[in-house]
Amino acid sequence: MSGHLAIVGLGPGDTRYLTAEAVEALAAAQALYGYGPYLDRVPVRAHQSRRASDNREERTRAAAALAHAAQGARVAVVSGGDPGVFAMAAAVCEEIESGPASWRALDVSIVPGITAMLAVAAQIGAPLGHDFCALSLSDNLKPWQLIEQRLDAASGAGFVLALYNPVSRARPWQFAAAIERLRRHLPPSTPVVFGRAVGRPDERINVVTLDAADATQADMATLVIVGSRETRVIERPGRSPLVYTSRAATEVSA
Amino acid sequence: MSGHLAIVGLGPGDTRYLTAEAVEALAAAQALYGYGPYLDRVPVRAHQSRRASDNREERTRAAAALAHAAQGARVAVVSGGDPGVFAMAAAVCEEIESGPASWRALDVSIVPGITAMLAVAAQIGAPLGHDFCALSLSDNLKPWQLIEQRLDAASGAGFVLALYNPVSRARPWQFAAAIERLRRHLPPSTPVVFGRAVGRPDERINVVTLDAADATQADMATLVIVGSRETRVIERPGRSPLVYTSRAATEVSA
Repeated sequence: MSGHLAIVGLGPGDTRYLTAEAVEALAAAQALYGYGPYLDRVPVRAHQSRRASDNREERTRAAAALAHAAQGARVAVVSGGDPGVFAMAAAVCEEIESGPASWRALDVSIVPGITAMLAVAAQIGAPLGHDFCALSLSDNLKPWQLIEQRLDAASGAGFVLALYNPVSRARPWQFAAAIERLRRHLPPSTPVVFGRAVGRPDERINVVTLDAADATQADMATLVIVGSRETRVIERPGRSPLVYTSRAATEVSA
Repeated sequence: MSGHLAIVGLGPGDTRYLTAEAVEALAAAQALYGYGPYLDRVPVRAHQSRRASDNREERTRAAAALAHAAQGARVAVVSGGDPGVFAMAAAVCEEIESGPASWRALDVSIVPGITAMLAVAAQIGAPLGHDFCALSLSDNLKPWQLIEQRLDAASGAGFVLALYNPVSRARPWQFAAAIERLRRHLPPSTPVVFGRAVGRPDERINVVTLDAADATQADMATLVIVGSRETRVIERPGRSPLVYTSRAATEVSA
Protein backbone atom coordinates (compact mmCIF):
# COMPACT_ATOMS: atom_id res chain seq x y z
CA MET A 1 0.00 0.00 0.00
CA SER A 2 1.80 3.11 -1.23
CA GLY A 3 -1.17 5.46 -1.30
CA HIS A 4 -0.78 8.90 0.15
CA LEU A 5 -3.27 11.60 1.02
CA ALA A 6 -2.22 15.22 1.68
CA ILE A 7 -4.70 17.79 2.94
CA VAL A 8 -3.26 21.09 1.82
CA GLY A 9 -4.02 24.56 3.16
CA LEU A 10 -3.90 27.27 0.49
CA GLY A 11 -4.33 30.17 2.88
CA PRO A 12 -6.71 32.99 1.93
CA GLY A 13 -7.12 33.83 -1.75
CA ASP A 14 -3.68 34.99 -2.78
CA THR A 15 -0.58 33.00 -3.65
CA ARG A 16 1.55 35.17 -1.34
CA TYR A 17 0.10 33.19 1.57
CA LEU A 18 1.23 29.80 0.20
CA THR A 19 3.89 28.02 2.23
CA ALA A 20 6.83 26.23 0.63
CA GLU A 21 5.41 22.94 1.92
CA ALA A 22 2.03 23.57 0.27
CA VAL A 23 3.64 24.38 -3.08
CA GLU A 24 5.59 21.09 -2.91
CA ALA A 25 2.59 19.01 -1.88
CA LEU A 26 0.49 20.39 -4.75
CA ALA A 27 3.25 19.71 -7.28
CA ALA A 28 3.72 16.13 -6.05
CA ALA A 29 0.06 15.11 -6.30
CA GLN A 30 -1.28 12.91 -9.08
CA ALA A 31 -4.86 13.91 -8.31
CA LEU A 32 -6.42 16.99 -6.72
CA TYR A 33 -9.80 17.12 -4.97
CA GLY A 34 -11.51 20.25 -3.69
CA TYR A 35 -14.16 22.90 -3.80
CA GLY A 36 -14.08 24.42 -7.29
CA PRO A 37 -12.93 27.96 -6.43
CA TYR A 38 -10.03 26.56 -4.34
CA LEU A 39 -8.95 24.20 -7.13
CA ASP A 40 -9.01 27.16 -9.52
CA ARG A 41 -6.20 28.73 -7.51
CA VAL A 42 -3.84 25.82 -8.20
CA PRO A 43 -1.82 26.01 -11.46
CA VAL A 44 -2.88 23.34 -13.97
CA ARG A 45 -0.27 20.60 -14.47
CA ALA A 46 -0.09 17.89 -17.11
CA HIS A 47 -0.78 14.37 -15.78
CA GLN A 48 -2.55 15.73 -12.70
CA SER A 49 -6.28 15.06 -12.52
CA ARG A 50 -8.67 17.35 -10.67
CA ARG A 51 -12.10 16.68 -9.26
CA ALA A 52 -14.12 19.73 -8.20
CA SER A 53 -17.09 19.42 -5.88
CA ASP A 54 -19.55 21.67 -4.10
CA ASN A 55 -18.73 23.47 -0.87
CA ARG A 56 -21.26 21.42 1.08
CA GLU A 57 -20.02 18.01 -0.07
CA GLU A 58 -17.11 17.80 2.34
CA ARG A 59 -17.63 14.21 3.49
CA THR A 60 -18.34 12.89 0.00
CA ARG A 61 -15.20 14.63 -1.27
CA ALA A 62 -13.13 13.27 1.62
CA ALA A 63 -14.36 9.72 0.98
CA ALA A 64 -13.65 9.95 -2.76
CA ALA A 65 -10.12 11.22 -2.12
CA LEU A 66 -9.45 8.49 0.46
CA ALA A 67 -10.74 5.76 -1.88
CA HIS A 68 -8.50 7.10 -4.64
CA ALA A 69 -5.42 7.19 -2.36
CA ALA A 70 -6.22 3.66 -1.14
CA GLN A 71 -5.73 2.50 -4.74
CA GLY A 72 -2.10 3.54 -4.40
CA ALA A 73 -2.29 7.07 -5.80
CA ARG A 74 -0.76 10.27 -4.47
CA VAL A 75 -3.79 12.46 -3.78
CA ALA A 76 -4.15 16.00 -2.45
CA VAL A 77 -7.30 17.55 -1.04
CA VAL A 78 -7.07 21.34 -1.25
CA SER A 79 -8.57 23.51 1.45
CA GLY A 80 -8.92 27.27 1.80
CA GLY A 81 -7.09 28.81 4.76
CA ASP A 82 -5.83 26.15 7.16
CA PRO A 83 -7.29 22.66 6.63
CA GLY A 84 -7.46 22.15 10.40
CA VAL A 85 -9.64 25.20 11.17
CA PHE A 86 -13.29 24.75 10.14
CA ALA A 87 -12.13 23.03 6.97
CA MET A 88 -11.29 19.69 5.34
CA ALA A 89 -8.97 17.96 7.84
CA ALA A 90 -11.72 17.11 10.33
CA ALA A 91 -13.97 15.85 7.52
CA VAL A 92 -11.22 13.52 6.31
CA CYS A 93 -10.64 12.26 9.87
CA GLU A 94 -14.37 11.57 10.26
CA GLU A 95 -14.29 9.48 7.08
CA ILE A 96 -11.16 7.60 8.15
CA GLU A 97 -12.77 6.72 11.46
CA SER A 98 -15.95 5.38 9.91
CA GLY A 99 -14.41 3.96 6.72
CA PRO A 100 -12.71 0.66 5.77
CA ALA A 101 -9.59 -0.48 7.65
CA SER A 102 -7.45 0.22 4.57
CA TRP A 103 -8.02 3.94 5.08
CA ARG A 104 -6.42 3.76 8.54
CA ALA A 105 -3.32 2.26 6.93
CA LEU A 106 -2.89 5.21 4.54
CA ASP A 107 -0.08 7.70 4.80
CA VAL A 108 -1.95 10.93 5.59
CA SER A 109 -0.27 14.31 5.91
CA ILE A 110 -1.79 17.66 6.70
CA VAL A 111 -0.14 20.82 5.41
CA PRO A 112 -1.09 23.83 7.53
CA GLY A 113 -1.98 27.18 6.00
CA ILE A 114 -2.73 30.76 6.99
CA THR A 115 -6.29 30.66 8.31
CA ALA A 116 -8.57 33.65 7.66
CA MET A 117 -8.38 35.10 11.18
CA LEU A 118 -4.58 35.38 11.00
CA ALA A 119 -4.71 37.11 7.60
CA VAL A 120 -7.44 39.55 8.67
CA ALA A 121 -5.64 40.29 11.93
CA ALA A 122 -2.38 40.98 10.07
CA GLN A 123 -4.10 43.43 7.73
CA ILE A 124 -5.38 45.57 10.61
CA GLY A 125 -2.76 45.22 13.39
CA ALA A 126 -2.80 42.62 16.15
CA PRO A 127 -6.37 42.14 17.40
CA LEU A 128 -5.51 38.49 18.26
CA GLY A 129 -2.47 39.62 20.22
CA HIS A 130 -3.82 38.12 23.40
CA ASP A 131 -6.15 35.25 24.44
CA PHE A 132 -8.80 34.59 21.81
CA CYS A 133 -11.40 32.08 20.62
CA ALA A 134 -12.28 30.90 17.14
CA LEU A 135 -15.97 30.12 16.86
CA SER A 136 -18.08 29.08 13.88
CA LEU A 137 -21.54 30.67 13.84
CA SER A 138 -22.89 27.90 11.63
CA ASP A 139 -25.68 25.99 13.36
CA ASN A 140 -25.78 23.29 10.70
CA LEU A 141 -23.98 20.80 12.96
CA LYS A 142 -24.59 22.22 16.44
CA PRO A 143 -27.62 23.78 18.14
CA TRP A 144 -27.87 27.58 18.17
CA GLN A 145 -28.23 27.47 21.94
CA LEU A 146 -24.72 26.03 22.23
CA ILE A 147 -23.34 28.85 20.08
CA GLU A 148 -24.97 31.39 22.38
CA GLN A 149 -23.50 29.63 25.38
CA ARG A 150 -20.03 29.84 23.81
CA LEU A 151 -20.47 33.52 22.90
CA ASP A 152 -21.43 34.20 26.53
CA ALA A 153 -18.53 32.20 27.98
CA ALA A 154 -15.83 33.60 25.68
CA SER A 155 -16.81 37.27 25.76
CA GLY A 156 -17.60 37.13 29.48
CA ALA A 157 -14.13 35.78 30.26
CA GLY A 158 -12.36 38.43 28.18
CA PHE A 159 -11.36 36.42 25.11
CA VAL A 160 -11.23 38.19 21.75
CA LEU A 161 -13.54 36.37 19.33
CA ALA A 162 -12.83 35.36 15.73
CA LEU A 163 -16.19 34.50 14.18
CA TYR A 164 -16.12 32.17 11.18
CA ASN A 165 -19.12 31.56 8.89
CA PRO A 166 -21.11 34.53 10.24
CA VAL A 167 -23.75 34.41 7.52
CA SER A 168 -25.02 32.20 4.73
CA ARG A 169 -28.11 32.12 2.56
CA ALA A 170 -29.56 29.38 4.77
CA ARG A 171 -28.61 31.22 8.00
CA PRO A 172 -29.84 34.81 7.63
CA TRP A 173 -30.61 35.83 11.25
CA GLN A 174 -27.85 34.18 13.28
CA PHE A 175 -25.18 36.85 13.00
CA ALA A 176 -27.54 39.63 14.15
CA ALA A 177 -28.49 37.45 17.11
CA ALA A 178 -24.81 36.91 17.93
CA ILE A 179 -24.11 40.66 17.92
CA GLU A 180 -27.10 41.20 20.20
CA ARG A 181 -25.79 38.54 22.53
CA LEU A 182 -22.28 40.01 22.66
CA ARG A 183 -23.70 43.45 23.56
CA ARG A 184 -24.79 41.96 26.89
CA HIS A 185 -21.16 41.33 27.83
CA LEU A 186 -19.07 43.97 26.09
CA PRO A 187 -19.00 47.79 26.16
CA PRO A 188 -20.51 49.66 23.17
CA SER A 189 -17.06 50.96 22.26
CA THR A 190 -15.59 47.45 21.74
CA PRO A 191 -13.80 47.36 18.36
CA VAL A 192 -15.24 44.99 15.74
CA VAL A 193 -13.28 44.15 12.57
CA PHE A 194 -15.03 42.97 9.42
CA GLY A 195 -12.54 41.33 7.07
CA ARG A 196 -14.02 40.45 3.71
CA ALA A 197 -12.31 38.49 0.92
CA VAL A 198 -8.90 39.02 2.47
CA GLY A 199 -6.07 38.51 -0.02
CA ARG A 200 -8.43 38.86 -2.99
CA PRO A 201 -8.78 41.87 -5.29
CA ASP A 202 -12.10 42.81 -3.66
CA GLU A 203 -10.67 42.71 -0.12
CA ARG A 204 -12.34 45.10 2.31
CA ILE A 205 -11.47 45.58 5.97
CA ASN A 206 -13.72 47.75 8.15
CA VAL A 207 -13.43 48.67 11.80
CA VAL A 208 -16.53 49.73 13.70
CA THR A 209 -17.62 49.76 17.34
CA LEU A 210 -19.92 47.10 18.74
CA ASP A 211 -22.82 49.54 19.10
CA ALA A 212 -22.54 50.39 15.39
CA ALA A 213 -21.95 46.82 14.18
CA ASP A 214 -24.66 45.78 11.77
CA ALA A 215 -25.24 42.24 10.56
CA THR A 216 -25.56 43.43 6.96
CA GLN A 217 -21.83 44.28 7.02
CA ALA A 218 -20.97 40.56 6.83
CA ASP A 219 -21.51 37.99 4.10
CA MET A 220 -20.29 34.45 3.40
CA ALA A 221 -16.76 35.68 2.62
CA THR A 222 -16.40 37.68 5.85
CA LEU A 223 -14.41 36.89 8.96
CA VAL A 224 -15.40 38.97 11.98
CA ILE A 225 -13.13 39.76 14.93
CA VAL A 226 -14.80 41.11 18.07
CA GLY A 227 -12.38 42.68 20.52
CA SER A 228 -12.17 42.39 24.28
CA ARG A 229 -11.89 45.13 26.90
CA GLU A 230 -8.15 45.17 26.17
CA THR A 231 -8.54 45.82 22.43
CA ARG A 232 -7.48 49.30 21.34
CA VAL A 233 -7.64 51.37 18.16
CA ILE A 234 -4.72 53.61 17.15
CA GLU A 235 -5.84 56.31 14.74
CA ARG A 236 -3.16 57.26 12.20
CA PRO A 237 -3.25 60.40 10.05
CA GLY A 238 -3.54 59.44 6.39
CA ARG A 239 -3.47 55.72 7.17
CA SER A 240 -5.97 53.10 8.24
CA PRO A 241 -6.17 52.62 12.01
CA LEU A 242 -4.28 49.88 13.81
CA VAL A 243 -6.35 47.58 16.02
CA TYR A 244 -4.54 45.56 18.65
CA THR A 245 -5.16 43.70 21.87
CA SER A 246 -2.82 44.54 24.68
CA ARG A 247 -0.78 41.69 26.10
CA ALA A 248 -1.47 43.01 29.56
CA ALA A 249 -4.85 42.24 31.11
CA THR A 250 -6.12 43.11 34.54
CA GLU A 251 -9.42 41.47 35.28
CA VAL A 252 -12.85 40.95 33.77
CA SER A 253 -16.01 42.26 35.31
CA ALA A 254 -18.15 39.71 37.10
CA MET B 1 9.10 59.84 5.17
CA SER B 2 9.75 56.61 3.24
CA GLY B 3 10.43 54.35 6.23
CA HIS B 4 8.81 50.95 6.32
CA LEU B 5 8.43 48.37 9.06
CA ALA B 6 7.44 44.77 8.33
CA ILE B 7 6.69 42.33 11.15
CA VAL B 8 7.35 38.95 9.62
CA GLY B 9 6.10 35.56 10.81
CA LEU B 10 8.58 32.74 10.19
CA GLY B 11 6.24 29.96 11.30
CA PRO B 12 7.63 27.18 13.52
CA GLY B 13 11.27 26.21 13.11
CA ASP B 14 11.46 24.89 9.58
CA THR B 15 11.66 26.73 6.28
CA ARG B 16 8.87 24.60 4.81
CA TYR B 17 6.41 26.73 6.80
CA LEU B 18 7.60 30.03 5.26
CA THR B 19 5.09 31.81 3.06
CA ALA B 20 6.04 33.43 -0.24
CA GLU B 21 5.22 36.82 1.30
CA ALA B 22 7.57 36.24 4.24
CA VAL B 23 10.44 35.23 1.94
CA GLU B 24 9.92 38.45 -0.05
CA ALA B 25 9.68 40.67 3.00
CA LEU B 26 12.90 39.24 4.45
CA ALA B 27 14.76 39.72 1.18
CA ALA B 28 13.57 43.35 0.83
CA ALA B 29 14.68 44.47 4.30
CA GLN B 30 17.79 46.60 4.89
CA ALA B 31 17.82 45.74 8.59
CA LEU B 32 16.52 42.78 10.60
CA TYR B 33 15.58 42.83 14.29
CA GLY B 34 14.61 39.83 16.37
CA TYR B 35 15.23 37.26 19.03
CA GLY B 36 18.56 35.60 18.21
CA PRO B 37 17.34 32.05 17.45
CA TYR B 38 14.71 33.44 15.06
CA LEU B 39 17.24 35.65 13.27
CA ASP B 40 19.48 32.60 12.90
CA ARG B 41 16.84 31.03 10.68
CA VAL B 42 17.08 33.83 8.12
CA PRO B 43 19.78 33.44 5.43
CA VAL B 44 22.55 36.04 5.76
CA ARG B 45 22.53 38.64 3.00
CA ALA B 46 25.13 41.25 2.12
CA HIS B 47 24.13 44.84 2.94
CA GLN B 48 21.50 43.68 5.41
CA SER B 49 22.19 44.47 9.06
CA ARG B 50 20.88 42.33 11.89
CA ARG B 51 20.29 43.17 15.54
CA ALA B 52 19.62 40.24 17.85
CA SER B 53 18.03 40.75 21.26
CA ASP B 54 16.81 38.65 24.15
CA ASN B 55 13.41 36.97 24.17
CA ARG B 56 12.16 39.19 26.97
CA GLU B 57 13.10 42.49 25.36
CA GLU B 58 10.09 42.70 23.07
CA ARG B 59 9.22 46.36 23.68
CA THR B 60 12.82 47.56 23.52
CA ARG B 61 13.29 45.67 20.26
CA ALA B 62 10.05 47.08 18.85
CA ALA B 63 11.07 50.63 19.75
CA ALA B 64 14.53 50.22 18.22
CA ALA B 65 13.07 48.86 14.99
CA LEU B 66 10.49 51.67 14.80
CA ALA B 67 13.15 54.34 15.40
CA HIS B 68 15.28 52.81 12.66
CA ALA B 69 12.37 52.72 10.20
CA ALA B 70 11.49 56.32 11.08
CA GLN B 71 14.91 57.32 9.76
CA GLY B 72 13.72 56.17 6.34
CA ALA B 73 15.00 52.59 6.36
CA ARG B 74 13.26 49.40 5.31
CA VAL B 75 13.21 47.35 8.52
CA ALA B 76 11.87 43.87 9.31
CA VAL B 77 11.16 42.50 12.77
CA VAL B 78 11.19 38.70 12.64
CA SER B 79 8.84 36.68 14.81
CA GLY B 80 8.44 32.96 15.38
CA GLY B 81 5.10 31.48 14.35
CA ASP B 82 2.57 34.19 13.56
CA PRO B 83 3.54 37.70 14.71
CA GLY B 84 -0.08 38.38 15.70
CA VAL B 85 -0.44 35.43 18.12
CA PHE B 86 1.40 35.96 21.43
CA ALA B 87 4.28 37.52 19.50
CA MET B 88 5.80 40.74 18.17
CA ALA B 89 2.90 42.50 16.41
CA ALA B 90 1.12 43.56 19.62
CA ALA B 91 4.41 44.76 21.12
CA VAL B 92 5.04 46.95 18.06
CA CYS B 93 1.49 48.34 18.24
CA GLU B 94 1.98 49.18 21.93
CA GLU B 95 5.12 51.13 21.05
CA ILE B 96 3.44 52.94 18.16
CA GLU B 97 0.59 54.01 20.44
CA SER B 98 2.87 55.40 23.12
CA GLY B 99 5.69 56.62 20.85
CA PRO B 100 6.31 59.83 18.86
CA ALA B 101 3.82 60.95 16.20
CA SER B 102 6.32 60.03 13.45
CA TRP B 103 5.81 56.35 14.27
CA ARG B 104 2.09 56.63 13.50
CA ALA B 105 3.02 57.96 10.05
CA LEU B 106 5.14 54.92 9.21
CA ASP B 107 4.16 52.34 6.63
CA VAL B 108 3.71 49.20 8.78
CA SER B 109 2.90 45.78 7.36
CA ILE B 110 2.37 42.52 9.16
CA VAL B 111 3.15 39.26 7.39
CA PRO B 112 1.20 36.38 8.93
CA GLY B 113 2.77 33.00 9.58
CA ILE B 114 1.87 29.48 10.69
CA THR B 115 1.39 29.76 14.44
CA ALA B 116 2.44 26.82 16.64
CA MET B 117 -1.06 25.51 17.32
CA LEU B 118 -1.76 25.11 13.59
CA ALA B 119 1.51 23.23 13.03
CA VAL B 120 1.02 20.93 16.02
CA ALA B 121 -2.60 20.27 15.03
CA ALA B 122 -1.55 19.41 11.46
CA GLN B 123 1.04 16.91 12.71
CA ILE B 124 -1.54 14.94 14.70
CA GLY B 125 -4.83 15.31 12.76
CA ALA B 126 -7.42 18.02 13.32
CA PRO B 127 -7.82 18.68 17.05
CA LEU B 128 -8.73 22.32 16.26
CA GLY B 129 -11.36 21.17 13.79
CA HIS B 130 -14.09 22.85 15.76
CA ASP B 131 -14.49 25.82 18.14
CA PHE B 132 -11.29 26.46 20.10
CA CYS B 133 -9.46 29.01 22.25
CA ALA B 134 -5.83 30.08 22.28
CA LEU B 135 -4.70 30.96 25.77
CA SER B 136 -1.29 31.95 27.12
CA LEU B 137 -0.51 30.47 30.53
CA SER B 138 2.04 33.20 31.23
CA ASP B 139 1.05 35.27 34.24
CA ASN B 140 3.75 37.85 33.61
CA LEU B 141 1.24 40.38 32.29
CA LYS B 142 -2.06 39.14 33.73
CA PRO B 143 -3.08 37.74 37.13
CA TRP B 144 -3.18 33.96 37.52
CA GLN B 145 -6.77 34.22 38.73
CA LEU B 146 -7.80 35.55 35.33
CA ILE B 147 -6.11 32.62 33.62
CA GLU B 148 -8.07 30.21 35.83
CA GLN B 149 -11.27 32.06 35.02
CA ARG B 150 -10.54 31.66 31.30
CA LEU B 151 -9.67 27.97 31.66
CA ASP B 152 -13.01 27.47 33.43
CA ALA B 153 -15.01 29.43 30.87
CA ALA B 154 -13.44 27.86 27.79
CA SER B 155 -13.41 24.23 28.90
CA GLY B 156 -16.84 24.54 30.51
CA ALA B 157 -18.35 25.81 27.26
CA GLY B 158 -16.82 23.02 25.16
CA PHE B 159 -13.99 24.86 23.42
CA VAL B 160 -10.81 22.94 22.60
CA LEU B 161 -7.85 24.75 24.22
CA ALA B 162 -4.49 25.58 22.68
CA LEU B 163 -2.19 26.49 25.56
CA TYR B 164 0.79 28.70 24.72
CA ASN B 165 3.72 29.30 27.10
CA PRO B 166 2.76 26.46 29.46
CA VAL B 167 6.02 26.56 31.41
CA SER B 168 9.10 28.69 31.92
CA ARG B 169 11.90 28.79 34.45
CA ALA B 170 10.17 31.66 36.23
CA ARG B 171 6.77 29.94 36.13
CA PRO B 172 7.27 26.37 37.37
CA TRP B 173 3.90 25.52 38.98
CA GLN B 174 1.35 27.17 36.69
CA PHE B 175 0.92 24.39 34.14
CA ALA B 176 0.24 21.74 36.80
CA ALA B 177 -2.34 24.08 38.32
CA ALA B 178 -3.95 24.53 34.90
CA ILE B 179 -4.23 20.76 34.36
CA GLU B 180 -5.78 20.39 37.81
CA ARG B 181 -8.27 23.12 36.96
CA LEU B 182 -9.24 21.53 33.64
CA ARG B 183 -9.91 18.20 35.36
CA ARG B 184 -12.86 19.85 37.12
CA HIS B 185 -14.57 20.39 33.78
CA LEU B 186 -13.45 17.62 31.45
CA PRO B 187 -13.67 13.81 31.55
CA PRO B 188 -10.47 11.86 32.44
CA SER B 189 -10.41 10.42 28.91
CA THR B 190 -10.11 13.84 27.22
CA PRO B 191 -7.22 13.74 24.72
CA VAL B 192 -4.27 16.04 25.43
CA VAL B 193 -1.60 16.69 22.77
CA PHE B 194 1.91 17.79 23.72
CA GLY B 195 3.67 19.25 20.68
CA ARG B 196 7.30 20.04 21.32
CA ALA B 197 9.70 21.84 18.95
CA VAL B 198 7.41 21.26 16.01
CA GLY B 199 9.19 21.58 12.67
CA ARG B 200 12.60 21.18 14.32
CA PRO B 201 14.83 18.08 14.26
CA ASP B 202 13.96 17.32 17.89
CA GLU B 203 10.20 17.52 17.29
CA ARG B 204 8.14 15.29 19.55
CA ILE B 205 4.36 14.92 19.57
CA ASN B 206 2.68 12.93 22.34
CA VAL B 207 -0.96 12.15 22.93
CA VAL B 208 -2.16 11.28 26.41
CA THR B 209 -5.43 11.43 28.30
CA LEU B 210 -6.19 14.22 30.74
CA ASP B 211 -5.97 11.90 33.75
CA ALA B 212 -2.45 10.88 32.68
CA ALA B 213 -1.30 14.37 31.69
CA ASP B 214 1.71 15.41 33.71
CA ALA B 215 3.13 18.91 33.85
CA THR B 216 6.67 17.58 33.40
CA GLN B 217 5.73 16.62 29.82
CA ALA B 218 5.85 20.29 28.80
CA ASP B 219 8.72 22.76 28.60
CA MET B 220 9.22 26.22 27.11
CA ALA B 221 9.16 24.84 23.56
CA THR B 222 5.87 22.97 24.01
CA LEU B 223 2.41 23.83 22.75
CA VAL B 224 -0.38 21.91 24.48
CA ILE B 225 -3.79 21.17 22.98
CA VAL B 226 -6.51 20.00 25.37
CA GLY B 227 -9.50 18.45 23.63
CA SER B 228 -13.21 18.90 24.27
CA ARG B 229 -15.91 16.26 24.70
CA GLU B 230 -16.05 16.06 20.90
CA THR B 231 -12.34 15.28 20.46
CA ARG B 232 -11.64 11.72 19.32
CA VAL B 233 -8.57 9.53 18.85
CA ILE B 234 -8.32 7.16 15.88
CA GLU B 235 -5.82 4.38 16.52
CA ARG B 236 -3.98 3.25 13.40
CA PRO B 237 -1.98 0.03 13.13
CA GLY B 238 1.69 0.86 12.53
CA ARG B 239 1.05 4.59 12.49
CA SER B 240 0.65 7.34 15.06
CA PRO B 241 -2.96 7.98 16.07
CA LEU B 242 -5.05 10.73 14.54
CA VAL B 243 -6.67 13.17 16.95
CA TYR B 244 -9.56 15.25 15.69
CA THR B 245 -12.49 17.27 16.96
CA SER B 246 -15.79 16.46 15.35
CA ARG B 247 -17.53 19.30 13.56
CA ALA B 248 -20.80 18.16 15.07
CA ALA B 249 -21.51 19.11 18.67
CA THR B 250 -24.60 18.45 20.72
CA GLU B 251 -24.51 20.18 24.05
CA VAL B 252 -22.23 20.74 27.02
CA SER B 253 -23.04 19.61 30.51
CA ALA B 254 -24.21 22.30 32.87
